[in-house]
Amino acid sequence: MAKLINDVLIDDNERVDNLNRNGYKIIQNPKMFCFGMDAVLLTAFSVVKKGETMLDLGTGNGVIPILLEAKTNGKKFIGIDIQQDSIKLAQKSIKLNGLEDKVKAICCDIKNVSDIFKNSEFDVVTSNPPYMNEGGGLVNDYSPKAIARHEIFVNINDISEAASKMLKFGGRFYMVHRPHRLADIFCALRKNNLEPKRIRFVHPFADKEPNMVLIESSKCAKPMLKVLPPLYIYKESGVYTKEVYDIYYK
Amino acid sequence: MAKLINDVLIDDNERVDNLNRNGYKIIQNPKMFCFGMDAVLLTAFSVVKKGETMLDLGTGNGVIPILLEAKTNGKKFIGIDIQQDSIKLAQKSIKLNGLEDKVKAICCDIKNVSDIFKNSEFDVVTSNPPYMNEGGGLVNDYSPKAIARHEIFVNINDISEAASKMLKFGGRFYMVHRPHRLADIFCALRKNNLEPKRIRFVHPFADKEPNMVLIESSKCAKPMLKVLPPLYIYKESGVYTKEVYDIYYK
Repeated sequence: MAKLINDVLIDDNERVDNLNRNGYKIIQNPKMFCFGMDAVLLTAFSVVKKGETMLDLGTGNGVIPILLEAKTNGKKFIGIDIQQDSIKLAQKSIKLNGLEDKVKAICCDIKNVSDIFKNSEFDVVTSNPPYMNEGGGLVNDYSPKAIARHEIFVNINDISEAASKMLKFGGRFYMVHRPHRLADIFCALRKNNLEPKRIRFVHPFADKEPNMVLIESSKCAKPMLKVLPPLYIYKESGVYTKEVYDIYYK
Repeated sequence: MAKLINDVLIDDNERVDNLNRNGYKIIQNPKMFCFGMDAVLLTAFSVVKKGETMLDLGTGNGVIPILLEAKTNGKKFIGIDIQQDSIKLAQKSIKLNGLEDKVKAICCDIKNVSDIFKNSEFDVVTSNPPYMNEGGGLVNDYSPKAIARHEIFVNINDISEAASKMLKFGGRFYMVHRPHRLADIFCALRKNNLEPKRIRFVHPFADKEPNMVLIESSKCAKPMLKVLPPLYIYKESGVYTKEVYDIYYK
C-alpha cells in the first residue's frame, strides 16, 4: 500500500532509507539504481565551502546533493539527471526532508546542461557517473540500471566537458570512478581544462587492489597531483575501518 | 689510490657496491647520480621474458640492465645515456661482472635513439627518468646530478616517444616516476600510443602518501588499467617489509 509521509506519497515499490545525517531520509526504488558506498565516499571527499553552489551531474535519486547539504555550509545544491523517474524520486526526497529552498532536482541531459544554466555558474561540480564503457556500438539494454551503470547516453568526456563549462575559473570537480578507467579519466579531464589535483584510491582491504578512485580536478589549474594515502573499507571481513564508519555514522 | 679489479680500473673517487644478485657488483661515483631504491623496485616490477631484448633509457651507471640480466632470462640488455661519464662507469661495471656479451652501455641522447637502433627493435623498454619539471626555461645547473633529476635534456614526452619508437607492437614500457606527475605521464604515454596497463604505488608506510609509482604501458594496447595493491617499504621505522627485503636480498 502506498503511504503518505510529510505530504509525500511513497509508492508500493519504493522504500524510505535513513541517511544517518540530520535525520534525513531518502526514497529509493530497488528496480532503479540505488545509491552505493561510492556516492557516500564521494560526499566525504568533496569540499563545498560556505556559500558555495554545487551541481551534481547524473544525480539519480539525489543522494549526493542531499548528503552534501547535510554535511556542508554550501548555499545551493542542484542535481540533474536524464531519467525523469529518478528526478521524481529525488524531488520527493527533497520535499520529505524539507529542503526545497536549498536543493533542486532537474531532469536534463548532461550534454545539454548549458541550455539550463549559465556557463561558469558553479563553484563545485560532482559526479558518480556510469563506470562501464563496454557498451560500445550496440546496446540493447536501456533499463534505468543500465543507463546509470554504462556509458549509454553519456561518457567520461561528455561529463568532463559539462563540468568544465559549469565551473567557475578555479572551480572544483569531484568524481568517483573505477581505477581501470584512470587513463581515460585523466585524458578527458585535461582535454576539458580540468587538471587532476588530488586522488584517493579506495581498497576493500589494505592488501587488495583498489575498486574505486576519488578524483578532484580544478578548472584551469597548474599540473601537480597529490595522491592521498589509501582509504581502506574493511579492517576485517564485515567490519568497517574507523574512517569509513565515521563517514557513514558520525 | 686507484686499484685494478678483474682488469677494471677503479678510480679514487669511485666505489664498488654489491648488488646482492649473482655476485654482481656496480661501480658508483658519489659525485654523480648513484642509483636508489626506485631503480631496484623498477627491476622487480619489470617483466623480461626468455629471449627478449630490452633497452633502458637514461641508464646512468647501468644498474637497471645489469640487475635485469641477473633477474631474468632476457637475451640482450642495452642501456643508453646522454652523459659520457655515466656510460664509462656502466661499461666498467659490465666488464667487472663479465657481462660484455649480453649487456651494453652506449652514449646517446634519448631523442636520437632512432639514429642507433632500428624502430620496433625491442620487446621491453625501461626508464628511471628525471622526475622534476621545475626547470622550466632557465636552468643554471648542468651538473650530472641535475641532469639525472630534472627534465633538462629530456622530458616525459621525449621518453615516451623514444620508448614507443623502439618497441615492437605489443611491447612493454616500464617506468618509475613520482605520483605527482601521473597525469603528465598518462597523457604523454597515450599521445605516443603507449596504453597504461598496470600501475603500482609505492608508499613508505601503509598510512602514508605514495612517493613513487611504477607504470607498465603497452604499445598499441586497448585501454584497461590494473591498479595493483600498494607496495609498502617499511613495516616499522628502518625495517623493510618482507616484500621489499626479498626484492633486495632474495
